[in-house]
Amino acid sequence: MAKRYGLGIDLGGTKILAGVIDLDSGEVLATAKKRTRTKQGVEDLLDRLGDVAEEALAAAKLHGGAVASVGVAAAGQVDPQRGVVLAAPNLGGLANIPIGESLGARLGLPVRLGNDVQGAALGELMFGAGRGVDRLLCVFVGTGVGGALIGNGALDSGPNATAGEIGHLIVHADGRYCGCGGRGHLEAYASRTAMTKRLLEELRRGRPSLLRDLLREEGVDENASEGATIRSGLLARAIEEQDGLTLEVLHEAARYLGYGLASAINLYDPRRIVLGGGVIEAVPLLAELAGRIAKREALPVPGQAVEIVVSKLGDDAGIVGAAILGSRADGV
Amino acid sequence: MAKRYGLGIDLGGTKILAGVIDLDSGEVLATAKKRTRTKQGVEDLLDRLGDVAEEALAAAKLHGGAVASVGVAAAGQVDPQRGVVLAAPNLGGLANIPIGESLGARLGLPVRLGNDVQGAALGELMFGAGRGVDRLLCVFVGTGVGGALIGNGALDSGPNATAGEIGHLIVHADGRYCGCGGRGHLEAYASRTAMTKRLLEELRRGRPSLLRDLLREEGVDENASEGATIRSGLLARAIEEQDGLTLEVLHEAARYLGYGLASAINLYDPRRIVLGGGVIEAVPLLAELAGRIAKREALPVPGQAVEIVVSKLGDDAGIVGAAILGSRADGV
Repeated sequence: MAKRYGLGIDLGGTKILAGVIDLDSGEVLATAKKRTRTKQGVEDLLDRLGDVAEEALAAAKLHGGAVASVGVAAAGQVDPQRGVVLAAPNLGGLANIPIGESLGARLGLPVRLGNDVQGAALGELMFGAGRGVDRLLCVFVGTGVGGALIGNGALDSGPNATAGEIGHLIVHADGRYCGCGGRGHLEAYASRTAMTKRLLEELRRGRPSLLRDLLREEGVDENASEGATIRSGLLARAIEEQDGLTLEVLHEAARYLGYGLASAINLYDPRRIVLGGGVIEAVPLLAELAGRIAKREALPVPGQAVEIVVSKLGDDAGIVGAAILGSRADGV
Repeated sequence: MAKRYGLGIDLGGTKILAGVIDLDSGEVLATAKKRTRTKQGVEDLLDRLGDVAEEALAAAKLHGGAVASVGVAAAGQVDPQRGVVLAAPNLGGLANIPIGESLGARLGLPVRLGNDVQGAALGELMFGAGRGVDRLLCVFVGTGVGGALIGNGALDSGPNATAGEIGHLIVHADGRYCGCGGRGHLEAYASRTAMTKRLLEELRRGRPSLLRDLLREEGVDENASEGATIRSGLLARAIEEQDGLTLEVLHEAARYLGYGLASAINLYDPRRIVLGGGVIEAVPLLAELAGRIAKREALPVPGQAVEIVVSKLGDDAGIVGAAILGSRADGV
């Protein structure tokens, strides 16, 4: 049988990653990458998307026609029917981005859109740490905390395509404000954004920490009131060096992540949980601590039974999932 | 076609209710009831179960053979395969109750066991407020807070038969201790047990409330340190009379129930939520307040879309669900 290939594009808040994927093995043949850059507006973003797509296709050196479909997993709310990203706070607030039409015309291929988290979960289900598991919860910790449910071996996104939004479980009634406008949500405690905010506040009030030097090395001004970010790699370095403040904030995030996972275990009873995303990749301690807390805090029967593992595809989950998504004419 | 009838038994912490049900219409033909009484042990409980079952069958005045199956929905952890209630804190701590064998021998009919909450959810799905809805969350507020998920039009109890345990969502990190040993669980804030505990504490420290008189009328000693209970009907009377303390505690319970529902909406994206159970039946204000809070606190898209309604079968949900359960040789 002829090999089936697909192009998968992961459109994230900081970078666009495109890859040509063997749809039967999940193998990544070639990739291309660009910064997302949203300040120049929708047209510029669509041009960049097309450029990255063509680069990846060229790098794969396949004969014409070998790639038959394109999938895009976007960090935002999408309308899969119309191929439009409706609203994307993580994409510089751009809205109504007609990716399907634009990319389809440029590449001459059918394009399907999905949500980035659901794409990554599909990748883990088909070729990653969720392979062969019929009931799965995937949780990704990065800028935010996203998640997706797999039920009966397929993506189970509910009637509004929002199922799996574990980042917006209320884990602390009347607690911290969340980016979404809610209160006490998991994301307000366990995302990189939440950890960054707490770390910068502690640095500003003069708490000693190795992070101060690490941030200065990177040219980040820890006194900037808005927009300063702490990369996952930097968190990892500070943890390696046993920095007290960073460890404290990480333990706090892990505790809340553990509570959120325990809630999800009690409500959904998944067979396995796959933890992924930038922070989990960079700081394995987070998954280890949160997994232990989740199993302890969940009801005994489902808590003991559930397996908690780390993503296998890592950074590739998005493009692999997007390519699978693109290959399914019948939708996810 | 001949009518199909089933016997359904709801084995709860305070009462055993048995009913003969028309399996095609959900109509309740006859019922019988006894107090549960667990102090005399397993044999006595099994005798009482058999007595109630025979009373209901006799009251229905059907010809022999018209009832072909028996279902029992029990307030505890069950092993459906062996027909045994494994452990039941709400049944006086009795364990390993061989209901299937005992009742099957006495009645000469096949007996199937299930969990009470899942039974009631099945009743609401087939003949109640969840009729025809393929994705449903049922939540019952009584002694505890129980729940069940319906996915693809069928009970979705997960690999460990524990899915839907909304009472054990962590809604307040490091908050109140829950009867299950966990912390910050919804049940520790929104169950009748939790409300009773707070009300009695407030009465003991001298807070003025109409409840004090109502309790004395009923012969309940509000200074008893353990075991005093406040019936849902009494809560309802105090609310009707606009008792300040009771309203305060009810509003608190409603707020937490709303948070728990919002979390479940975000994670599971149900089309409809059915609220039932003794407290919801007696105090409609609880469902009204909690529903409003849930819709406000959930993510906008699933929060606006979800319908939140009140149980239609009320006290009959358990026997109707149990009878359906009993009629299914293939399990739930």
